[in-house]
Amino acid sequence: MSMAAEPLFGVILAGGSGTRFWPLSRSQYPKQVLRLLGSDSLLQSTVARLLPRIPLERLAVVTNAAQADVIRLELHRRNWHGMNLWLEPEGRNTAPAVALAAARLGPEAGKQVMAVFPADHYIKDQTRFLEALEKGTELARAGHLVTFGITPTRPDTGYGYIQIGEALDSRRSGFQARRFIEKPDLERAKSFMAAGGYYWNSGIFLFRRDLLLEAIGKYLPELYAAVPMLQEADPEGLADIYQRLPNISLDHGIMEKADNVAVVPVDMGWSDVGTWAALYDLFPKDERGNILMGRALDLESKNSLVFSQNRLVATIGLEDAIVVDTADASLVCHRNRAQEVRELVAELKRREMVESVLHPTVERPWGRYTVIDGAPNYQVKQLEVDPGQRLSLQYHNHRAEHWVVVQGVARVTIGRETKDVATNESIFVPLKTPHRLENPGQEPLRIIEVQTGAYLGEDDIVRLADDFWRAEGADKSAE
Amino acid sequence: MSMAAEPLFGVILAGGSGTRFWPLSRSQYPKQVLRLLGSDSLLQSTVARLLPRIPLERLAVVTNAAQADVIRLELHRRNWHGMNLWLEPEGRNTAPAVALAAARLGPEAGKQVMAVFPADHYIKDQTRFLEALEKGTELARAGHLVTFGITPTRPDTGYGYIQIGEALDSRRSGFQARRFIEKPDLERAKSFMAAGGYYWNSGIFLFRRDLLLEAIGKYLPELYAAVPMLQEADPEGLADIYQRLPNISLDHGIMEKADNVAVVPVDMGWSDVGTWAALYDLFPKDERGNILMGRALDLESKNSLVFSQNRLVATIGLEDAIVVDTADASLVCHRNRAQEVRELVAELKRREMVESVLHPTVERPWGRYTVIDGAPNYQVKQLEVDPGQRLSLQYHNHRAEHWVVVQGVARVTIGRETKDVATNESIFVPLKTPHRLENPGQEPLRIIEVQTGAYLGEDDIVRLADDFWRAEGADKSAE
Repeated sequence: MSMAAEPLFGVILAGGSGTRFWPLSRSQYPKQVLRLLGSDSLLQSTVARLLPRIPLERLAVVTNAAQADVIRLELHRRNWHGMNLWLEPEGRNTAPAVALAAARLGPEAGKQVMAVFPADHYIKDQTRFLEALEKGTELARAGHLVTFGITPTRPDTGYGYIQIGEALDSRRSGFQARRFIEKPDLERAKSFMAAGGYYWNSGIFLFRRDLLLEAIGKYLPELYAAVPMLQEADPEGLADIYQRLPNISLDHGIMEKADNVAVVPVDMGWSDVGTWAALYDLFPKDERGNILMGRALDLESKNSLVFSQNRLVATIGLEDAIVVDTADASLVCHRNRAQEVRELVAELKRREMVESVLHPTVERPWGRYTVIDGAPNYQVKQLEVDPGQRLSLQYHNHRAEHWVVVQGVARVTIGRETKDVATNESIFVPLKTPHRLENPGQEPLRIIEVQTGAYLGEDDIVRLADDFWRAEGADKSAE
Repeated sequence: MSMAAEPLFGVILAGGSGTRFWPLSRSQYPKQVLRLLGSDSLLQSTVARLLPRIPLERLAVVTNAAQADVIRLELHRRNWHGMNLWLEPEGRNTAPAVALAAARLGPEAGKQVMAVFPADHYIKDQTRFLEALEKGTELARAGHLVTFGITPTRPDTGYGYIQIGEALDSRRSGFQARRFIEKPDLERAKSFMAAGGYYWNSGIFLFRRDLLLEAIGKYLPELYAAVPMLQEADPEGLADIYQRLPNISLDHGIMEKADNVAVVPVDMGWSDVGTWAALYDLFPKDERGNILMGRALDLESKNSLVFSQNRLVATIGLEDAIVVDTADASLVCHRNRAQEVRELVAELKRREMVESVLHPTVERPWGRYTVIDGAPNYQVKQLEVDPGQRLSLQYHNHRAEHWVVVQGVARVTIGRETKDVATNESIFVPLKTPHRLENPGQEPLRIIEVQTGAYLGEDDIVRLADDFWRAEGADKSAE
């Protein structure tokens, strides 16, 4: 790409609900922050993929306010501090999310091109992705609403298709869109493959901000009317506005209707990683067609995915099975029925089972904690404080805490006193007493915390000072 | 049965290795102590089944020395304190176990009838069992080596068969044994069903002690030569003797060869509960043929067994599956391959995986403990002390302990001092300091114990006094 490349604004849609990869995903730990395909989360991979072309300060993540902390933490862990984070009060599908981004960009963005990306897709071929991004930018600049069309590799019935029309250039790298087709049945998907000229709808879009707003005005006038308010509103105001917004995707609301839609076909090893079965397709298998990850021991299973987070999982003679084992919940599912995990999680929510919401291990900016035991009147956590980090200065109204240091040295403030507590020493934190925990060392600090009290919820934290974004008055959901 | 019933001596063979019901069974928590079919363990059910006919002090359990504590605990929990417990240094199959029992009974038992029962079978119909026991006693008294033949209900290929010969009485309640047949293939099993006169070999035997020894002398002279030594030997002596004993079953070694074998046919709802699949057969199923036990949530599985000890297990679209989930390990297995769990556990042992040996929750005479977190230098346990119970007076050479009381009041002795520690209080137990923990209350006492030290093994306990059978000098494997 040339150095004089058109400036782009990147919008990453990260509003996943965390249902399809349960029990690895939870509503408070959604798919986009999972490390499904390596050491980076899908969100981190998405940002890293864009950074060669779009600088941090021209990137924004649009996500649900309830997931703000976990998203912030993902960016914090990579020291990506210049990015915008725009919070929706609730998910209303992609059209309102993109409208919010256009509104927050503001009129000064003028005719700049916005590029919209799902936070949770996999793209293998970075070079082809960047090439397509340039072509898309060029077409958007010229007045098109652009979508990436993925070259289909099989008659998949899980994706929507786009049929292309006339080529827009002699290199045939861009086409008019002829029509959008909903997820087809297998016969129809096969006929698309045979006919050629059909592409998977990727959910990656590029358009000029002015032309996006024009299209919203034309096809979604209710949403258009809300744009000035979306630009200025505080969280409470946004909550009011969102209640009245249409719950609709950008595809349905605009792309399928507009007459200036262009398709950039691209073959880049793409997957939306939509289910455990899709993940199975992405990984290399052993000679029996199995993928065994974690502490798994198998006797003669075939074409199965076994994933264990920490415990031992033994399997015998399975076929086409998916086994996912986490600290507090496990899933065993036929591979052809992985899409039904959503219904399962819906049922868990109906039954108000906590396993749909949280993991026992919760990541925090200072490290992480794991709930290792509990009952109505007490809770035991293992805290791991990263080197040089400290928790907020805080107190609790309803619980006392006993801390036993089992690794490292803790610098502990209780009331007006600060002292170092060594491995194998313990200290008591009374009710309503301001306290702070710090790891001044070079190694992780590990503490067993026994909480006792009538109420042990995470929201019984009053923060007096914080090194991160969680000062009093801000969101209080994180310890 | 008449009041003047022949005195019987009952021998319960409880030497199971804990492999077939992994991960619910472990080598330190074998099948006979599992509560597979109700609130009693299989061993407790076996004892309870015999008590209407044989008093406690005429019952003995023969088991492996390594499992002595867990067996003692099972009997202790039911206050069965008068029973004999005869420990084998290693398992050498049933012939040596029965010879050990005959030896320990001693010559004064003379012509008394010994009745031998596996500890881990299921018998539904207690009345028919007791009737068969009377008939067996009568035939044994008359000079037969008696075995129970179970009326087959299906052409099972997992059991050995016995073909009966001439009836021994006009009521046709006892028969000569014609021949023993090893586990047949399906065709042969079907032909047995069609022909009639074939019974499953149950592993339940009755014989006069003098005639058993005579048969051992005739067919297993090596074993016979050891009998006087088996009677007197201390544990070390037994270990020496056992190394030289033949590893052979009573069936192969004697019953198949002797000419005075009688069969008592009995139809009593018997199962050897040999695998997870056999357990599946015993339970009532829902309309889809599923058995869901514990926190299980299923979408449309069929003919499957899902058992969860404490965590959430979700299943979708399984067929003929067995899913068993325990605190530290889970099994997912095709129902037709349940017998391969043995090989799986053999592999775990080869890899020295602790999940083949122990559960995180370990039963103790005073209550139980659960390991809830650990690393090389520390371990966290939740201790639950039953009302009125206390642990031994003990000290540790390599570890210190922090105790936080989270439920109840603990009476704690440390060194020369005894004091009460209330809920939400904590106390420190230094290295090498004698200490004792007691629950003087009416409710369970719950304590979080954080152990720190370079060595945290269960064998670092020096017991100075104990309420149970674990005084210093005795077995030290239990806390």
